[in-house]
Parts: sequence; C-alpha cells; structure tokens
Amino acid sequence: MSARKPTIADVASAAGVSKGLVSFALNDKPGVAADTRNRILAVADDLGWRPSLSARSLSTRTSFALGLVIRREAEVIGADPFFPSFIAGVESVLSERGRALVLSVVPDGAAELATYRTLAGDNRVDGVFLTDLRHSDQRFALVEELGLPAVALGHPASNVKFPFVELDDTSGIQAAVEHLISLGHTRIGHVAGDPEMIHGGRRRESFADAMRAAGLDGSLVIETDFSVSQGADATRRLLDGPHAPTAIVYANDPMAIAGLGVAQQRGLSVPGDLSITGFDGTDISAYVFPALTSITSDPVEWGRVAARTLLDQIATGVASNVALPPAQLLVRASTAPPRHHAEHPSALR
Amino acid sequence: MSARKPTIADVASAAGVSKGLVSFALNDKPGVAADTRNRILAVADDLGWRPSLSARSLSTRTSFALGLVIRREAEVIGADPFFPSFIAGVESVLSERGRALVLSVVPDGAAELATYRTLAGDNRVDGVFLTDLRHSDQRFALVEELGLPAVALGHPASNVKFPFVELDDTSGIQAAVEHLISLGHTRIGHVAGDPEMIHGGRRRESFADAMRAAGLDGSLVIETDFSVSQGADATRRLLDGPHAPTAIVYANDPMAIAGLGVAQQRGLSVPGDLSITGFDGTDISAYVFPALTSITSDPVEWGRVAARTLLDQIATGVASNVALPPAQLLVRASTAPPRHHAEHPSALR
Repeated sequence: MSARKPTIADVASAAGVSKGLVSFALNDKPGVAADTRNRILAVADDLGWRPSLSARSLSTRTSFALGLVIRREAEVIGADPFFPSFIAGVESVLSERGRALVLSVVPDGAAELATYRTLAGDNRVDGVFLTDLRHSDQRFALVEELGLPAVALGHPASNVKFPFVELDDTSGIQAAVEHLISLGHTRIGHVAGDPEMIHGGRRRESFADAMRAAGLDGSLVIETDFSVSQGADATRRLLDGPHAPTAIVYANDPMAIAGLGVAQQRGLSVPGDLSITGFDGTDISAYVFPALTSITSDPVEWGRVAARTLLDQIATGVASNVALPPAQLLVRASTAPPRHHAEHPSALR
Repeated sequence: MSARKPTIADVASAAGVSKGLVSFALNDKPGVAADTRNRILAVADDLGWRPSLSARSLSTRTSFALGLVIRREAEVIGADPFFPSFIAGVESVLSERGRALVLSVVPDGAAELATYRTLAGDNRVDGVFLTDLRHSDQRFALVEELGLPAVALGHPASNVKFPFVELDDTSGIQAAVEHLISLGHTRIGHVAGDPEMIHGGRRRESFADAMRAAGLDGSLVIETDFSVSQGADATRRLLDGPHAPTAIVYANDPMAIAGLGVAQQRGLSVPGDLSITGFDGTDISAYVFPALTSITSDPVEWGRVAARTLLDQIATGVASNVALPPAQLLVRASTAPPRHHAEHPSALR
C-alpha cells in the first residue's frame, strides 16, 4: 500500500473519466450510468480510495467521535480500576462502529466545563459521556446549551433530557450491611467516597438506611476522595475512635485493600478482629489475603451499554434509560463473625 | 452564551463590513486597514466567534489531536495503574496546548495496525504514541509508511526515525537484586512480564545479568501477561518448585500484591519467609501490609515528556531522544534477610 492517499483525480485518471463524474459516482448522486458507476467504484476500491474525514465532517457536521471528560486527580485515576475498564467497554463498541474516543482528564470543575465547550465549539465530538455525576451538576445545563448529545452514568434525574445508564449500587451496599449484621456485627463503619459525587452519596445513604432498618447506629461514616491514602487514614480514625467498629464497608476496593493493610499493621486479624468489604470486585481483590468480600459491578459492560446508548441518542435524538443488573455482593474470606463480642480488639493495639 | 455558533456572516453584519473583509481580518491577511481589523476582531470576540476546527483542519491538514492505541486485554488494563497515570500526564500537556487525545483500546495486533491506518487515513490525529514496544514491532514500518509522526516509549532502537522517551528500568531491577543479595538471599526468583514486550524482556535480562554478576543462578524465571491472576499462578509455581526461592522480584506491583496474598495464604510470613519486590511504586503498594519494596518510576512525568516530545516532532519534524531519571529502588517492609538459611519455609506448606 502506498503512503500517499489516492485522490479523486487519481481515480478519474485510472478510470478514464472526469473528476466530476467520479465525485458524482462516489457520492451516490443521480445521473451516472450504472455500468460507469460500477466501473468507477471498482477502480476507487482497487486504488484504496476513501473519503476524507474532514470533508465528510464538513458536509455532514459529524465528527465520528465521542467525548469522555474525566475530572479526577492523576493519583486517584491511577489507583482506581473503574475508568480503564469502563473505557475498554466503550472502545469495544466504538471500534465496531468506526468511531473514535476523545479523552480528556481534567483536574477541576472550571477545566471540565471549558473542555466540554471546546469539544462542542470545535465540533470535535458528536456526543459525550457524563460520569461521576455531582449534586447540582452544571454539566446538565451546559450540554443542553451546547446542543451536545449526552448519556449520563447513574440514577436518572428528573428534568434531564438525555438518557441515563444506571448500575444500581445501593442494593449491593445494603446486601453487604445485611451480611455483616447476620454474622453478628453491630458496630459497623463506612469509609465513604466523595460526598459531592452522587454515587458516593447514594452508597452512604444506602449504608445508613440498611443500618437504621436493623435498629443500628449508621453514623460511623468517614468521607474520602476515593484515594488509597484517604482510605487508610479513614480506617485509622475509625479504629482509634471511641466506638471502634468490628466491620467496615468501603466505597471502593483500593481503599478496602489499604484498610486491610492498616488492620494487619496493627496486628488485627482480618476477618477475626475486623471484617471488611470492598466495592467493584476488581481482579486484585480476589488475590489479596484474605480475599476481599466485595460488591461486584461490571464496568466493561457499563461502558458497552453507555456507548450503544449514546450512539442511538446521536442517531435518532432519543434513547431510553437503561438499568443494568445491580451490583451483587460476593462473599469471600474477609468477612466473618466478630471474634470478641465483649472485649474489643482495640485492646490489641 | 447562545447555543448557535456565530458565523463570519454574523460578524460581518455586526461590524457593518463584508464577509470577505471579515475573513481577511480574521485570517490575518494583508490589505485590511489596522483600525478596521481591530474593530472586526473586537466584534468577533464579543460574539464569541471561533474558527471551525473542520475548516482549520481542511486548510492546514492538521487535526490538533494525538493518538494513543493501547493493545491490552480489558482485564489487564483495569489492574495496571500505568496507563491511567501516563494518560493523566499526557493530558496535562495537551490541555495547555489545545490538543485532544484520541484513545483506542484494541485486543490484538491486527486491530492495532488497522487502528493506526484508520487514524492516519481519516487524518484524525497529527501523531501517535507507541507504547509497549515489541520485538520486530510492525508499527515502526507502518507509521513511517503512513507518514505519521510518532514518539516511542522505551529504549531507542537503531534505524528508527522518530524520537524515543526512555525511562530506564534495568538499573532498578539490578538494584532490587543487589539489595536482596546483600540481605543474604541466594535463591531469588523473577515473575516476569510479557516476553513479547521489549520492556518485559529487558527487565528479565537485567535480572539474569545481576544474578550472574553475583555468581548466582538467574534461571528461576516465570513469564506472565502482567495480569494479577498469572502473577499469583507464577508465585505458586515458584514456591512449589524444587528450588523454591526465598525472594521474588516481580515485574509489576499488582502481581507482587497477588504474590503477597499467595504467600500469606500459605502461612508464609513476608518478609520473614519470603521477601518480595514490586515495580512501579504505585500508591497501593505503600498501603498493603507489609508495605511493598518497589522500583519507582514516574508514569505521569513520562506522559508529560512524551507529549511535549511528540508535539515538537510534529511542529519541527525532528525531536531528540529523552532519557528520564531511571527507576529507583524504594526499600519498604517486604524485604528482609531470609529467616532460615538451612531449613526452607516450604516445609510450612
């Protein structure tokens, strides 16, 4: 294959017709005799001619790309396997459909909004994924103002005109709390995620609801930014507090693994002295010791469905909300009945 | 701000001049009086006029985007923090320079090569990053054939016309082996990465070289695909073998964490019965127990430097190879002198 892309002039020359006729034939316009059209198409195919994306984009105002803007610190991005897995799912659909993914990683809200404006202003993407939804999220109004098709990941909000793809995480948190209560735990803590993010808040509320339903105190909660360092700190604060828990429910697996490390460093046995549960069912969670009881979602499938939904939304202007199978509790070895009901393991510290 | 983008006609109408004059003024062409040009620019600015990316692209043949094609299984992508951190570094430079990143995740070599062809054929990107370099890598010839500027991550190869950004990992592996030998270990194993990838092979060779230099047997090596599951399997095979090691050097942190889990599950104490070292100095490696001795690189900085180098290469046609500070051994708690020199801990199994 030659490095230079064949042009319409090359096709015209090889087929022995005018450039205008080639253009008409390739763009499927009327007025070209069937056998001439077929001959031109065969020559174009032989030469490896393809329409230029820029030219197609100008005539169709389509960029054949979707945008994903991730607002997270580099440190958190590196530790959290959610986005790489989600992106792998998105890509598996886009590659089939000849679409590209334009990815931006931004540190704060101002950069996030500016990036959506640039993506729309440059006609760089045909639509965007909205992840990590926040309370009073400014992106809802912005993408509407920009006329940018969008799909949001999370629980459907009212008054929002684009589709949501939801993977319910509340039932998983509830199942984790009920599992711990059934083992005999009464003092259960929660290391929560970023309270500004709706999914962090929903996991926290599910925790409190499940505790309240069992007549237990659900206030033993520490908020974090989802990073492993804050997960470790939160564990220390819970274990040092006046009502140290015998079990901790974490809002993601990396923080649970950090909590496991903190407990083991203090000479606490997991699960004998402290039970812990993670969230997301990452690969690594099955290989730490003890293997982590976790709440499994399927971020690759979430990416696939979100991509299909966004492409539908772009093509037709409407797409339905999708509810994926809810996150499920996966019981492994890091949860067990509390060893000492009367005497608390904080004595071991 | 209105959703509709202002056009040159809007600017002409608001400024009371012809569209042709606006076009000349906005494109900085000669023949427009200074005060008229300034008035037109002020009106365009007030209206929020911006040149269309498609139009700019057609006239300059520039897409203002860079491409990254990652050939990994979704599972491996999710477990390895390298790519998210590298991408965060790339993005920090691209956002400053008004460039976008087009990301593709592909499962195999055929899809990888097809993706580069499409990126070039569609004029989708101005240049590409080449990561995970392989022996007899077909991408070198392909990007040259496609006329696509590129920057490669890794040790410079001869006969390749684009720049390399290298973060030497061999001295880190060597330092890890020397550290273990200085502690008294003589049976040291290596859980290596993908042998098709040059960096996996170089880490393996560095391991063998360092062992040989100390007069020790460097053949206790098991190759993997870098996944946590294969890291765990390799650990089991090493510990079950006839010459079970007292220390294992892993080619990445996730595999080392999986190896730590395997050892602990067997009742082996780390580092008492088995010393282990990781690679990359990920956040989580500092929070497992015992904290992981690792070889730290800086993938965020690698991303920044690779992005700057590629932009230079695109702008000028030449850019120099860059050597980043080599990976450094970071000694934490997972390495110690072997407890039993005579009696091997495999007896504990």
